[in-house]
Amino acid sequence: MKELKIDSIDFKKGDGLVPVVVQDAEKQDVLMVAYANREAIELTMKTGYAHYWSRSRQSLWKKGETSGHLQKVREVLIDCDQDTVLYVIDQTGVACHTGERSCFHNKLVQ
Amino acid sequence: MKELKIDSIDFKKGDGLVPVVVQDAEKQDVLMVAYANREAIELTMKTGYAHYWSRSRQSLWKKGETSGHLQKVREVLIDCDQDTVLYVIDQTGVACHTGERSCFHNKLVQ
Repeated sequence: MKELKIDSIDFKKGDGLVPVVVQDAEKQDVLMVAYANREAIELTMKTGYAHYWSRSRQSLWKKGETSGHLQKVREVLIDCDQDTVLYVIDQTGVACHTGERSCFHNKLVQ
Repeated sequence: MKELKIDSIDFKKGDGLVPVVVQDAEKQDVLMVAYANREAIELTMKTGYAHYWSRSRQSLWKKGETSGHLQKVREVLIDCDQDTVLYVIDQTGVACHTGERSCFHNKLVQ
């Protein structure tokens, strides 16, 4: 595992944003995908809790700030192209706004 | 788990593409994030092997076609917003073009 600083992340490709995959550290299920700008990732590293950029509300967003469904971040991983991020987290409550544990609760069928 | 058809997927938000998170079915590690258009997902469902849309090459791409590092797809999940997809796969060889198993082999440090 190579260690990188935030300057290594390529925010340009996504107009200032990178997709963030969120995985539970213990259960290892993929809980959601959201987006982050540089400030959201800086706040995540500084506070230890997952922050994102809400594209619909056009604002910074601390996950669980109103619902209490916080995500304590164990580590932030960066992919080989340095344009996608993975938050490995401990989830309080559920990740999905529908009340399901994971946002990936639909299965594609033919 | 709700069952959805491909028409449910919202390709509009991403100009015809959706992000695809790829997770190993056994080891449960997140291997990569790529993009797919409707045709790539249809080919994935039809053949049982992961297909994507390469944004850099602007072409359909069967993972492992040249490297042999195929991804046999067990299921395709869709998130609550229906704009992000998760391929749960069995990975032959490695997922990353660098030779690492997962593309997420860098850790963000302060």
